[in-house]
Amino acid sequence: MQGQIPFGVADYFWEEALQRQELTANLLATFRRWGYGDVIPPAFEYADSLSAQASAGLQAEMYRFLDRDGKTLALRPEFTTPVARLVGTRLHDWPMPQRFGYAGSVFRYVDPQAGRQREFWQAGVEMFGAAAPDADAEVLALTVEAMTVAGLRDFRIVLGQIRYFSGLLAALQLTPDQSDALRWAIERKSEPALADFLRETPLSSEQRLAVEALPGLSGGDIPRVIAQAQRHSLNSEMSQALENLRAIVDAAASHDILGSIVLDLTEIRSLGYYTGISFEALAPESGFSIGSGGRYDDLVAHFGPAQPAVGVALGVDRLLLARQRQAGQSASIQPARLDALVLTGNSPAAMKEVQSWRAQGYRLQVEVNGRNLSEALAYAAQTDVGQVLAWEGTQFVAYRAAADGDFVPSRGEISFDD
Amino acid sequence: MQGQIPFGVADYFWEEALQRQELTANLLATFRRWGYGDVIPPAFEYADSLSAQASAGLQAEMYRFLDRDGKTLALRPEFTTPVARLVGTRLHDWPMPQRFGYAGSVFRYVDPQAGRQREFWQAGVEMFGAAAPDADAEVLALTVEAMTVAGLRDFRIVLGQIRYFSGLLAALQLTPDQSDALRWAIERKSEPALADFLRETPLSSEQRLAVEALPGLSGGDIPRVIAQAQRHSLNSEMSQALENLRAIVDAAASHDILGSIVLDLTEIRSLGYYTGISFEALAPESGFSIGSGGRYDDLVAHFGPAQPAVGVALGVDRLLLARQRQAGQSASIQPARLDALVLTGNSPAAMKEVQSWRAQGYRLQVEVNGRNLSEALAYAAQTDVGQVLAWEGTQFVAYRAAADGDFVPSRGEISFDD
Repeated sequence: MQGQIPFGVADYFWEEALQRQELTANLLATFRRWGYGDVIPPAFEYADSLSAQASAGLQAEMYRFLDRDGKTLALRPEFTTPVARLVGTRLHDWPMPQRFGYAGSVFRYVDPQAGRQREFWQAGVEMFGAAAPDADAEVLALTVEAMTVAGLRDFRIVLGQIRYFSGLLAALQLTPDQSDALRWAIERKSEPALADFLRETPLSSEQRLAVEALPGLSGGDIPRVIAQAQRHSLNSEMSQALENLRAIVDAAASHDILGSIVLDLTEIRSLGYYTGISFEALAPESGFSIGSGGRYDDLVAHFGPAQPAVGVALGVDRLLLARQRQAGQSASIQPARLDALVLTGNSPAAMKEVQSWRAQGYRLQVEVNGRNLSEALAYAAQTDVGQVLAWEGTQFVAYRAAADGDFVPSRGEISFDD
Repeated sequence: MQGQIPFGVADYFWEEALQRQELTANLLATFRRWGYGDVIPPAFEYADSLSAQASAGLQAEMYRFLDRDGKTLALRPEFTTPVARLVGTRLHDWPMPQRFGYAGSVFRYVDPQAGRQREFWQAGVEMFGAAAPDADAEVLALTVEAMTVAGLRDFRIVLGQIRYFSGLLAALQLTPDQSDALRWAIERKSEPALADFLRETPLSSEQRLAVEALPGLSGGDIPRVIAQAQRHSLNSEMSQALENLRAIVDAAASHDILGSIVLDLTEIRSLGYYTGISFEALAPESGFSIGSGGRYDDLVAHFGPAQPAVGVALGVDRLLLARQRQAGQSASIQPARLDALVLTGNSPAAMKEVQSWRAQGYRLQVEVNGRNLSEALAYAAQTDVGQVLAWEGTQFVAYRAAADGDFVPSRGEISFDD
């Protein structure tokens, strides 16, 4: 006897699996309505391709294995790189911009924790060939839309622009060690580490003020944060980052999503990958990240002619968990919902009627184990099915669960609860 | 520059990916209407579990790799075993029968050929805890329904019952070599090999007649085939196999599917796995198998208390290919369908109208690269979009593609082609 499954993967079934399938279907349908075409990259491909711009952390988390010709394969740890590869190698001659939406599972060798599995589901979009702020704004708006479609009531997007910080680094002309120390302090939002950096690093007073101001450059009052940041801009890269943010925020206003956005210029975790905005979608109640995205203009060039690009990936497991917590529900095993259990007595006329109800979308389970009516009613009660339909000669008689749990026959027109 | 993908996997995108997603969604919806609950097993698990009853061939085709704790994992090569594991280990105390439906990709190291990839998609159902013929008939009927839902006009199900042949083997009391020779001849439908077997094997005249009759025991006239087989029944196992078939065919009649079924008692390829009926779904025009299924009452016992079981797995790639061939279409790259390209000028009022159309299900792409109207019309023509909506101050003006390819403005109510 065997049957354990590995740490970090899971079986989803019945109501839990249905919600997962329905959510991914709804997200894909949403992406399509915004003009994003479906894309399904392979579950595995060459590890080299998947590593094109992967951080050391992500590379360490990849599931690698050998193809029979000796080449190293890996399970996809995310969708952005495979889609960028597709665009770079096969679609660069098609008109731009190109928009893609996806949903499926990805694989990372991580330490499992609440809402974090080694196989987990992502749904997201990528837009290639559009460098304008309107493209960034659309991806932000679609992120808001996706979280709304997923049923989240409470969420926000923390938006950064990596070039404000990279401009600051350039202006400070730091040694690599100094640069790492500043980055470390800002990434971890550590005041003591920032104080250490300021004490140990010789800076002009203007530079010092810019570094000291950095931790305060965040908040929901976006024009105020941008204006404050502008006062500490030390070069054109920093100014252009702010100019870009201003234009994206203007475009986002037309999508009516500014109420969900918080600006944060200390959001620099993806330095080296993102080349413009980067953002994180958060569900405050649940206290965890639902997804992230940003502009990555350097990735496609690994595979073909360069293309500007912007996108977002949402964690389906996180969306489900956040929705469940916001609704005050807990996970429990619930059998698949049914509209009725049916005893047909193998009558073709009965089966035909069952089929016409199914064609209307009702979920009908036909009894196949030879249960008689009273056995079927007991089984229905046990599996929480509210109605049993029994073929009696020339028509169905409905037995509906009453308040006391007993089933009561009701002749006449058959109806289903919607 | 990199970007090759491994032999045997593929990127699906735009119209091709959409059709794949829509087909799997439709199949899952069909399964649900028949009372089959969703199930999503992991993409990989312990190779030992997946090997529970896997043939040597399937075991050789599994993608194996090591977990970091040294245990051997494998990508799932099919769904039946993981679902049987789930039922055996976690759901055996829940009421039976239990019905499950799934769709997703599976992985086999095979030689790629037309319609055969190393990552391919399966959709199917499994029913546990029902040994009665009605259960087999339901799975056959749902197979017919699924192929109809998939849009196949022309298909048939070749139905066998493995116990007729295993009963014959028992009756003949052959040596292992003789048994292999007979099996080989029947599996390959080889007349010379069968003649060799008959020449080299001492048999009673009754036994000889039963073996000689075997290749003829197939056809669409099911009662005739069963009656003919009955004349050569040598023991109760063979008679019970026919009795079981008769009962399943009776139950299948109430589903009105007998016109799609051909009986074939030489269908024995899955001896050792299936324990009752086994069947294959074929698309005659395309000349290939779309899927297969049968009864496998011995599998769940590998993981927990024994449960009778019957199911079917359909190849999504095969369904798509067969449908395409039956419709006389060929695969070509087609961008995602759009209802309109929209120039909003970043007007909040325009964006609001776009959102209300999207809420009605229309697919609208908003211009984000700053194209003006004439550039947008050229882009629309290039990407085969039939309508461009341009916000002109307080309302949209529609530009619709005329027969000559030019776009003509039409003021007034906006409409979309359905």
